[in-house]
Amino acid sequence: MTRVAIAGLGTVGCGLVSLLEQRGGQVARGERVEIVAVSARDKNKHRPFSTSRYEWYDDAVAMARSSSADVFVELIGGEDGIALSAARAALESDKDFVTANKALLAHNGGELARLAEQHSRSIGWEAAVGAAMPIVAAIRHSLFANRSERLIGILNGTCNYILTRIEDGESFETALAAAQAQGYAEADPHADISGLDAAHKISLLSALAFSTPLALEQVSVEGIANITLDKVRAVARNGYCIRLLAICEAVPDGLSLRVHPCLLPIGSRLANVSGVCNALIYQGDFCGQVFISGDGAGGNATASAVAGDIFSIARGRKIPLFGLPSANLSALPFCPLQDIISPWHLNFRVRDQVGIVASISAVLRDCGISLASILQDGSADGDADNVSLFLYTHRASTIAIDRALSLIDKLGILQSAAFAIRILEMNEDK
Amino acid sequence: MTRVAIAGLGTVGCGLVSLLEQRGGQVARGERVEIVAVSARDKNKHRPFSTSRYEWYDDAVAMARSSSADVFVELIGGEDGIALSAARAALESDKDFVTANKALLAHNGGELARLAEQHSRSIGWEAAVGAAMPIVAAIRHSLFANRSERLIGILNGTCNYILTRIEDGESFETALAAAQAQGYAEADPHADISGLDAAHKISLLSALAFSTPLALEQVSVEGIANITLDKVRAVARNGYCIRLLAICEAVPDGLSLRVHPCLLPIGSRLANVSGVCNALIYQGDFCGQVFISGDGAGGNATASAVAGDIFSIARGRKIPLFGLPSANLSALPFCPLQDIISPWHLNFRVRDQVGIVASISAVLRDCGISLASILQDGSADGDADNVSLFLYTHRASTIAIDRALSLIDKLGILQSAAFAIRILEMNEDK
Repeated sequence: MTRVAIAGLGTVGCGLVSLLEQRGGQVARGERVEIVAVSARDKNKHRPFSTSRYEWYDDAVAMARSSSADVFVELIGGEDGIALSAARAALESDKDFVTANKALLAHNGGELARLAEQHSRSIGWEAAVGAAMPIVAAIRHSLFANRSERLIGILNGTCNYILTRIEDGESFETALAAAQAQGYAEADPHADISGLDAAHKISLLSALAFSTPLALEQVSVEGIANITLDKVRAVARNGYCIRLLAICEAVPDGLSLRVHPCLLPIGSRLANVSGVCNALIYQGDFCGQVFISGDGAGGNATASAVAGDIFSIARGRKIPLFGLPSANLSALPFCPLQDIISPWHLNFRVRDQVGIVASISAVLRDCGISLASILQDGSADGDADNVSLFLYTHRASTIAIDRALSLIDKLGILQSAAFAIRILEMNEDK
Repeated sequence: MTRVAIAGLGTVGCGLVSLLEQRGGQVARGERVEIVAVSARDKNKHRPFSTSRYEWYDDAVAMARSSSADVFVELIGGEDGIALSAARAALESDKDFVTANKALLAHNGGELARLAEQHSRSIGWEAAVGAAMPIVAAIRHSLFANRSERLIGILNGTCNYILTRIEDGESFETALAAAQAQGYAEADPHADISGLDAAHKISLLSALAFSTPLALEQVSVEGIANITLDKVRAVARNGYCIRLLAICEAVPDGLSLRVHPCLLPIGSRLANVSGVCNALIYQGDFCGQVFISGDGAGGNATASAVAGDIFSIARGRKIPLFGLPSANLSALPFCPLQDIISPWHLNFRVRDQVGIVASISAVLRDCGISLASILQDGSADGDADNVSLFLYTHRASTIAIDRALSLIDKLGILQSAAFAIRILEMNEDK
């Protein structure tokens, strides 16, 4: 029998209790799984189950250390504090550790992996990236023989929900309020909107897929706070939508780790991922492109992944946190964002006067940026004096684009700040 | 170190040798994986690697029994014969067994699972369903805690390739010839076209996902041989495309296992799966819908999955073939196809005369079939005397549709055989 202690009884914790009560014995059969202890801040809060069935701990760390559990499940949240103390205590007490906490692992995964190895324990974290999406098991097992080439993910459901609502005609602020009303976004949505949450997740996946030590500090992060309804409408007229992508890819100079909004052709696989759904394209040298999508958030979806880890542990799985023993992970050089090359979309709001296009395109030429197309649109907003210029470039580095934008700004012709966004290059002919 | 013997050196076998030679030591690090023996029909055939590096066996069964391998990989093919004898010999000789052979497992998986358990060995079969698509690991691990509700797959790349080519304007025969020229379809394409290959795969997935004994004989199978360019064009005008689906779902009367062509709304996730790509939607009670797609065929994609299983075994994975020990699998009742209910598309070619629609709709009414829409189209093919009637029904059972078609046939008004095809009902609002 596998005994489980659960710390944190919010939506996910209650979902997990419900799942394990329904089928702890049934699903695992030979490997019965049973909750023995629970912990949360407030014992007397109303919950859909009776906590009196289980040993109660006010202190999660004490539960991690003292309970009779074989597996300690951490659903408290936070990158350090109680969650980290409890994780350490659980592993030091020879318990397996399962968590949905990406911030905790992104900051402390290296230490916890070593601790788990010292104590011959497992760390399950399927739920930490993409909730019910089975990407950790896929990369750890089925795809493990591949040399990873590229991972492109929509890994933050809140941002994707907001971007989808903007596509449907809402302002950023209204969409964010809707996400909060639905319970998708926190009262303080900073970690989602800023791209930090997606950065946590892609740093974890990159360590697993590229067998490298965790390197959260190497992730270049740009969020979606400047994506407006106007911008979304403008790119939609040219056949694109905007998604916040988390990308990890092998480039000639090393590994590129980044989170930023990106244009995708409407109708492409990632563009079709809407609402709080998450998705990942994994590209390996032998498997080609594998696409996985599913519910990226929610109590039941997350509980599904946590329980999957518990059952895997109950059935004897012992795979290191990042697939390989810590000592076998090898650091790769990182390629800074400024050297990453991609096509770009540039959007300038300018006065409608002679020579503007010539001035802007001269700057781009001087910066070595080649134009794929240029469109002028003055009709959209009844502002007769100004026009919008939509430029689509061929491949250019971030540093070249930054330089061009700075020079264009100095021309003194912009009526508002320029908007520049990368365009995803993706071979989707299969 | 994990020693591997490979039987069968076709496209997949050569891909696997190449993969393991490139990174047997590298990927598994602590768990070095090395080829020790190979076997194929013709030792002297030209291959991209030198077979002299490995012990050669003319007889795969002898290799399974006598080689020093820890893992025996079967890439011979066929539901019995040498493949089955070698599988038995490998397990009886206490070797783990990895295969890409769905026919072998669909027919003999129960016996081989028990044999593996008796000898405490693993059977890896990620490659047998969907090649590089990591669905077996996903269901065995991440999604294992769910009560499975429904699996809907595009599991035969050859059929999907043919259907996609027909969409692009080719006849069935031309599309099939193209599939053969590309190496996707066998010289005898019967197993693909008839739906048998997809039936093998869905029977395996159903045993895993529903913890039931294998029941290949319970799969209702209908292939794509009667899907013509005319029919594909006609449904496209109404916003649908045709895909061969393999479905396993819990229905009120038990489990429904079936393979048949189906209409899907253009733009939906499964409709977007084109060419030789495979895809699966897994729906569970806690995880919701998870969507996975990837290369469903090809030497490298299949080798990727085989190697993933080898590495998992090397790292100590020991999960029973269908997730649970054979003794814990429990049979479910099966719901026959005739009782399965879905919306339908019916296509009748009739003489353009008064009262035809009234006659047909009276029959449907008498059979309890309710119409959602009816369209008449005489313009398509310059045949002024005849028209096509396109009917879309609300939910009706197969038995009701069969009865209605038989009665309509007796009206003596059909100019060619009626065409009836189910329409997939799928909640895709996320």
